[in-house]
Amino acid sequence: MGDEGLDVSGLSIGILGGTGHQGMGLAHRFAAVGHQVLIGSRSAARAHEAAESLGPGLPVRGEENAVVAAESDVVIIAVPWEGHRLTLEALRPVLAGKIVVNCVNPLGFDKQGAYPLDVEEGSAAQQAAAILPESRVVAAFHHVSAVLLLDPEVSEIDLDVLVLGDDRQATDTVQALAARIPGMRGVYGGRLRNAHQVEAFTANLISINRRYKAHAGIRVTDV
Amino acid sequence: MGDEGLDVSGLSIGILGGTGHQGMGLAHRFAAVGHQVLIGSRSAARAHEAAESLGPGLPVRGEENAVVAAESDVVIIAVPWEGHRLTLEALRPVLAGKIVVNCVNPLGFDKQGAYPLDVEEGSAAQQAAAILPESRVVAAFHHVSAVLLLDPEVSEIDLDVLVLGDDRQATDTVQALAARIPGMRGVYGGRLRNAHQVEAFTANLISINRRYKAHAGIRVTDV
Repeated sequence: MGDEGLDVSGLSIGILGGTGHQGMGLAHRFAAVGHQVLIGSRSAARAHEAAESLGPGLPVRGEENAVVAAESDVVIIAVPWEGHRLTLEALRPVLAGKIVVNCVNPLGFDKQGAYPLDVEEGSAAQQAAAILPESRVVAAFHHVSAVLLLDPEVSEIDLDVLVLGDDRQATDTVQALAARIPGMRGVYGGRLRNAHQVEAFTANLISINRRYKAHAGIRVTDV
Repeated sequence: MGDEGLDVSGLSIGILGGTGHQGMGLAHRFAAVGHQVLIGSRSAARAHEAAESLGPGLPVRGEENAVVAAESDVVIIAVPWEGHRLTLEALRPVLAGKIVVNCVNPLGFDKQGAYPLDVEEGSAAQQAAAILPESRVVAAFHHVSAVLLLDPEVSEIDLDVLVLGDDRQATDTVQALAARIPGMRGVYGGRLRNAHQVEAFTANLISINRRYKAHAGIRVTDV
């Protein structure tokens, strides 16, 4: 996948908004393969609690978002869309120079299901890039099923993680990180300007899950 | 896939703009499994030529777009985005009551590759639905690789066709049609309001093809 030979096993991973389902699921999987994981929250107490809830023996700590951002090699943004802009604005200096992985899906919900919200910058990832000009923003992990990530019975995650960005070294790194989780691959998915449809496609996966009673993901063929 | 027992083998398939690569590829595959296929073009002469070029012995004819729209059970819109609106406006009466399958991807290209164009109605499929209120508009076949469809060495197409629409019977029919092509599945992909990201995702597949020198498609997991 272009990341052959890239050893990312020593990278620590911070997850802002890591007390949500998606963040907890990723924390669990990355810690299970030996990454130091820092779960971030606005509240240090909630972060501690979340880290403890993943069980003993895992290399997971909980801290306030700002501490997590400062201490992690790679920072995953998993905050709710509502808090996206303000969270990133507050952390701009401490995220400078870092690989910042955006997995936020700006979605609305009504009785017909999920639909993508309009984002002024085009996508959550582009909004992050606009707020964090000194960071290396990558978009990835949009389609992970929190249910599967958190299920101890599921040993392999049947999913290709689309990794988007304009910084080749950063996307290669995130592809290699995705491949650390058993079953997952990281597949380059295009530049940041093409992130909107990957975020929005989560709405389609929600429709698919509803129709087929599934936890759907995607695989890219011929790659 | 929800279409079990739905026999669509007797349906004739018209392809407007069928002389392009995508249209020709679909014509070839549907004719190869026995569907009567009508290739449409603005020019009857070009349509005849296209039909003949697929080789003898296949149930394929070429006709002007209006004839194709009138005579086919299911009509696939494969015209270039530039001609989309005018083509459909001209055919509104003759397409009334029919299943109209939109596979148009509104994309722009520059030196960085492909990117989605803004569409006033949200997507090509929604534009089709707005122009054709009497038709049963479905969106599907966006991600088929014309190269693979037209390659006689390729016996199976490794692709899930996402089928979107608000008319259950129509989406079931198109899912069953997709499944007629060996290797393909038709998977329900959501309502028409979620078609934009499926169309736009073709830009990502183009990026993927370029990076990996592939003819990428997608498979939906857990379905």
